Amino acid sequence: MCEARVFLEKEGKILPFMDNVVTIKPENEKLLLIDLFGNRKYIDASIKELKLLEHEVILEEKE
Amino acid sequence: MCEARVFLEKEGKILPFMDNVVTIKPENEKLLLIDLFGNRKYIDASIKELKLLEHEVILEEKE
Repeated sequence: MCEARVFLEKEGKILPFMDNVVTIKPENEKLLLIDLFGNRKYIDASIKELKLLEHEVILEEKE
Repeated sequence: MCEARVFLEKEGKILPFMDNVVTIKPENEKLLLIDLFGNRKYIDASIKELKLLEHEVILEEKE
């Protein structure tokens, strides 16, 4: 499976934000994250970096 | 393996851009894409959407 751990970069720190994420897409000017279990989170951020082999996604908070 | 097929959205069309991509990261104000075999491409775009279960990444050309 290719679900990812999503981290959020905020004020120079990188913190875990959501696990087992399968979809990230823009919706209503935010990013919608959906995990394997159908849980949804919205965040005002953009996608900065993908590390697919490590199953990691880095988001960057919008200013 | 979790390599992805990367598509580029440009003028309303979505076209295949690069296969077997394992890393996408910002570098020199562009995005650097690296595939499984170490091939590298730069593109002036941002990451729009991730569909990890489908192994697809959608990029959006910068205006």
